Amino acid sequence: MPELRRDPIIGRWVIISSERGVRPRDFVRTPAAKLSASLCPFCPGQELLTPHEILAYRPHQSEPNSPGWSVRVIPNKFPALQVEGDLGREGLGIYDRMNGVGAHEVIIETPNHADSLADLPTKQIEDLLWAYRDRLVDLKKDTRFRYILVFKNHGAAAGATLEHTHSQLIALPIVPTSVIDELDACRNHYQGKERCLYCDILRQELSDGSRLVAENPEFVTVTPYAPRFPFEMWILPKRHAAYYEESQRAQFEFLAPILAESLRRMDRVLSKPAYNYILHTSPLHEASGPYYHWHVEIIPKLTQVAGFEWGTGFYINPVAPEEAAKALREVTL
Amino acid sequence: MPELRRDPIIGRWVIISSERGVRPRDFVRTPAAKLSASLCPFCPGQELLTPHEILAYRPHQSEPNSPGWSVRVIPNKFPALQVEGDLGREGLGIYDRMNGVGAHEVIIETPNHADSLADLPTKQIEDLLWAYRDRLVDLKKDTRFRYILVFKNHGAAAGATLEHTHSQLIALPIVPTSVIDELDACRNHYQGKERCLYCDILRQELSDGSRLVAENPEFVTVTPYAPRFPFEMWILPKRHAAYYEESQRAQFEFLAPILAESLRRMDRVLSKPAYNYILHTSPLHEASGPYYHWHVEIIPKLTQVAGFEWGTGFYINPVAPEEAAKALREVTL
Repeated sequence: MPELRRDPIIGRWVIISSERGVRPRDFVRTPAAKLSASLCPFCPGQELLTPHEILAYRPHQSEPNSPGWSVRVIPNKFPALQVEGDLGREGLGIYDRMNGVGAHEVIIETPNHADSLADLPTKQIEDLLWAYRDRLVDLKKDTRFRYILVFKNHGAAAGATLEHTHSQLIALPIVPTSVIDELDACRNHYQGKERCLYCDILRQELSDGSRLVAENPEFVTVTPYAPRFPFEMWILPKRHAAYYEESQRAQFEFLAPILAESLRRMDRVLSKPAYNYILHTSPLHEASGPYYHWHVEIIPKLTQVAGFEWGTGFYINPVAPEEAAKALREVTL
Repeated sequence: MPELRRDPIIGRWVIISSERGVRPRDFVRTPAAKLSASLCPFCPGQELLTPHEILAYRPHQSEPNSPGWSVRVIPNKFPALQVEGDLGREGLGIYDRMNGVGAHEVIIETPNHADSLADLPTKQIEDLLWAYRDRLVDLKKDTRFRYILVFKNHGAAAGATLEHTHSQLIALPIVPTSVIDELDACRNHYQGKERCLYCDILRQELSDGSRLVAENPEFVTVTPYAPRFPFEMWILPKRHAAYYEESQRAQFEFLAPILAESLRRMDRVLSKPAYNYILHTSPLHEASGPYYHWHVEIIPKLTQVAGFEWGTGFYINPVAPEEAAKALREVTL
């Protein structure tokens, strides 16, 4: 059983998932293997290589775990957390632990092995966004869970171990420290001013314009004012909303094209870098409606700027976000 | 002039250092160039390729900026911060900024290009530790500075751009968020219990033993209970002390061998990985004497486990620290 452990200093919970069977020598650096489509467990026709599907959109009403799907959600074959069991909260002297109970799912974004998310048809990306929503709505019913992380690792340098484009979802019995920090800041701002902090940021960004990357009636992509990473982007809904899963149809229709456009601009400027994106949405049972504002953070993984930052929480960013936004905004698509 | 910007949500300060002249195409991934010793600016005989030295230990009383030194400290030729100027604190609507005033120095650890820190003679490592101390004591006099980060990037994957082994130091006009969080936790623990949190951890680790890696009369190396990264190690002084720079001679004499031993154990188990280490010491003008406990954190950079962690602050660690400690402790040196 994986374990959740709390750092006694910072209060950060960490998953210790040693049952994934990693041994010291596995850390010796080797490039990620490229699987040809014929060996890929995410390709149609190979559904039986994965655990049974949890959800699939099947325009042609095909059988579960058979080809014909456009988006398919499966349990991660090597989950960081286990879905069965109770939390077994425990103190060990100064330390705190609980069982690694949670869900770890993979969202296969397209049946076509060679596709890249940025270049998918808008309708296909919309389906993906609906799949995120459907899984959030379903997992929310499990009262053991307090947060659901939806994220994507694209490229080996960003942590993807399989090439076939996919996203992941982790349902957690705790709220990650960085989400707690974000929520606290938003709550404080709201208590003082009766306004959402992200709404204030949005207003300033739209009037300033120097960090704008893309915009449509429902969303805006900006480079944040104090980004940790070069070319970091945030996609913010213009309408205030704390919960991604409560979005309306129109929102998904506008999120899909701006997500694709933002990724394509990044691909053009940075020659298709590895990247991560993370959905920042409200914790599940938190009355954060008035003060939290869901959004997506996109972080290209540019190895030449890696460094001590992860150890210190202190970041040096060699590209001003205004320069990054200008390059992203002005590149020809 | 580089800029310090504060994230309006998390409160984290970030250096925007775009004067280092990085353009988008510089982020296209290329392996770091290997310089032969004859082109290396950190090698003896090439002192004039670097800015003038700030400090050098010269056992043979040689001239400044000439060969004969054992450890040499120079300003970083491409500093993330500038040492001249005032802070120019400013609010821009919802945002906060100040001028990027600070010091950015390089500590060249040995005159020999081919040396690795882990394999240096203990006496040479002691000199390095004294150089850290001397620079901390000197920079502390500058009232603009509030924190000094001492760190080492070893290997291209850990952010080192030059192969010749070196450490770095950045003096900051702000305290990094992660240090503030650490201090707050230590202060709270002390206020409740009149004990240092790290001293409590140390006692539990020494009696438990399962995460011990190395030990001598003054220091202990452990893998922390809730590590973010596989094979992360902490070197803790057994004697309570908040300020690294107030260490006594005996402490440096015992820190040098345990630092070398910890790195050598890591090198053996993980086949000489890239790594970062970071000195966690008290902010400069903080009365943290009773409650903070300086230490060194060592983080091997193992690319196969990179991922979305940096974007979420949430970590999945595939190696339990007890397993890591066992491998590190038992490897033959």
